[in-house]
Amino acid sequence: MDKKAVSLAVVRRLPRYYRYINDLYVDGVERISSTALAEQMGFTASQIRQDLNCFGGFGQQGYGYNVETLRSELASILNIDKNYCAIVAGIGNLGRALLQNFNFIRSGVQVKAAFDADLRVVGTEVNGLTVRYIGDLEDFLRAHPQPIDIGIITVPKSVAYDVAKTFCDNGVRALLNFTSYDLSRAGITVPVENVHFTDSLLTLTYRIE
Amino acid sequence: MDKKAVSLAVVRRLPRYYRYINDLYVDGVERISSTALAEQMGFTASQIRQDLNCFGGFGQQGYGYNVETLRSELASILNIDKNYCAIVAGIGNLGRALLQNFNFIRSGVQVKAAFDADLRVVGTEVNGLTVRYIGDLEDFLRAHPQPIDIGIITVPKSVAYDVAKTFCDNGVRALLNFTSYDLSRAGITVPVENVHFTDSLLTLTYRIE
Repeated sequence: MDKKAVSLAVVRRLPRYYRYINDLYVDGVERISSTALAEQMGFTASQIRQDLNCFGGFGQQGYGYNVETLRSELASILNIDKNYCAIVAGIGNLGRALLQNFNFIRSGVQVKAAFDADLRVVGTEVNGLTVRYIGDLEDFLRAHPQPIDIGIITVPKSVAYDVAKTFCDNGVRALLNFTSYDLSRAGITVPVENVHFTDSLLTLTYRIE
Repeated sequence: MDKKAVSLAVVRRLPRYYRYINDLYVDGVERISSTALAEQMGFTASQIRQDLNCFGGFGQQGYGYNVETLRSELASILNIDKNYCAIVAGIGNLGRALLQNFNFIRSGVQVKAAFDADLRVVGTEVNGLTVRYIGDLEDFLRAHPQPIDIGIITVPKSVAYDVAKTFCDNGVRALLNFTSYDLSRAGITVPVENVHFTDSLLTLTYRIE
């Protein structure tokens, strides 16, 4: 499979497939037709077949998808089995909410450390991690025995670029950006996924009838 | 324009167009070609023309888009000029992060109240709003002089459905759901936008090379 040949629009739907298939798996469902899956997900069956065909198909005419197989194929495509390491920079309310409530492990990601600039926060513990001083981020990244793959950015917008730059200059391979700072326009070249609350809110206001 | 005829995939790209066009407007740019806009946004020019054509076009061959006009057209399509009212239910770290850091007004949304179940939080003030007791949500919705249009759900997953049901039974017209609870499968029929951190994280792990 050539990953580059698959459009980002399809890629962005994959986690959603994984979520639904994983729920079916947890519920003990053994197989599902593309029609039934389509109904649950609010897609069309042909969309589902088309999307999954980008990665080799996995379904059989007249049988549908084997849930366990599809789940493990999707997990592998999404690199859930790679045990990537992450760091959260910015332990304000949002960073804290992520560390306390979000199940990183279910996505195969281990959070190795948390950093903040506020000395009142540095040294406190959040969900088993002692918050470190952001000024020590570079040294930490260089000294860490495993490479840190993912930088999660929950700092104020004004320092988002500096933190992103420190991550990238020290081997971090991908960024999850919660700020509204546009890192790709600022010359950051690793893959960046942005969580834009505004976009979700505006999609919603559009849909109000 | 028939809103129902426009696919949700196109709709979900509109806020992004608005963000870029608004930035250009703030920067004093007067017009922009679809090619230049495409380059900034990482889309193709034909995609942009196709998407905006769903709403009537707005561009002129050889001239491009008038930034001010396109901005106000997009704002109107996205209902930013409607002054919708919202409530945030769940003032844990995430609800607090939204209230303190997120600029709702820029999306044309006014947050009218905040609710929580924790009596240690009830009565405290967050960004000018006194947190109310979640048990009073129904009475508040019924008594509020303006209708509340949007319910923002940042409660624990276990109570997401109850809160959503209270919203919908009392006239709320759209939900922004930050929990991983699948409200549409549970029979909630108003438009729901879900903010799925997992989906962003998994899209990112997919893209790591």
